[in-house]
Amino acid sequence: MPNSNTKGDRRERELVNLLDGDGFAVMRAPASGSATERELPDILAGDSGNFYAIEAKSSGGDPIYIDEEEVKDLLFFAENFGAEPRIGVRFDHESGDPGYGNDNVSGWYFFHPDELYETNSGNKRVKKETALDDGTPYENLVDF
Amino acid sequence: MPNSNTKGDRRERELVNLLDGDGFAVMRAPASGSATERELPDILAGDSGNFYAIEAKSSGGDPIYIDEEEVKDLLFFAENFGAEPRIGVRFDHESGDPGYGNDNVSGWYFFHPDELYETNSGNKRVKKETALDDGTPYENLVDF
Repeated sequence: MPNSNTKGDRRERELVNLLDGDGFAVMRAPASGSATERELPDILAGDSGNFYAIEAKSSGGDPIYIDEEEVKDLLFFAENFGAEPRIGVRFDHESGDPGYGNDNVSGWYFFHPDELYETNSGNKRVKKETALDDGTPYENLVDF
Repeated sequence: MPNSNTKGDRRERELVNLLDGDGFAVMRAPASGSATERELPDILAGDSGNFYAIEAKSSGGDPIYIDEEEVKDLLFFAENFGAEPRIGVRFDHESGDPGYGNDNVSGWYFFHPDELYETNSGNKRVKKETALDDGTPYENLVDF
């Protein structure tokens, strides 16, 4: 499910380049679809040991909602492929804010879908505070 | 390096759908580039045990040439990611031709780049006869 909004797309490219710079081989899903009827994760990344299927979501500050269907598709692809499913979230102005006591310079935080709050309608939600408090910072994901 | 010619593109989609139908999770490289400066393989496929980075090439009958640079990029990505590098080739009228004594209904044959003939200029070449005689038929790649 490639992100079509411009800022989300830029954020996603930033994440791809981060992972690439840290030794991962990375493929983004094509914007024009997958050739099959399967929905694809935004990003597939591997470093010869860890494989991640990632949905990348960014927000100016509002909570991020992930549709139940999108989560199901991510879990399906990841299990089938043999990758770890992750929701990557990034909130504006939250890249390495020392005032907040974090040094996650990338601003990206990661969750397994099962770790996320589920709304009454079955979708997942990530608030900014939850990301900063409970998410796995990018630096820990890539296991320096 | 997504294939931009229409028939090559169709062939590549056929391969993606074959793999998908046989239990692989598959991602095609985006036509518009990778967001990084790395060249991507045409296809990434995983089935929770086998991971393949594939360059897919098709031909009406003429030998298929693969540029030295393209091979290098494939090997680099595959090693980095943690996937097996494969060149997939398909020649027209060679899908399950019983007259030729083969039952490879898909028509796709696979090689590790190191298995391929190297021309004087350092590129790789696959002739139709070589594919049919020495390639790994699709059916064997997916390990039924």
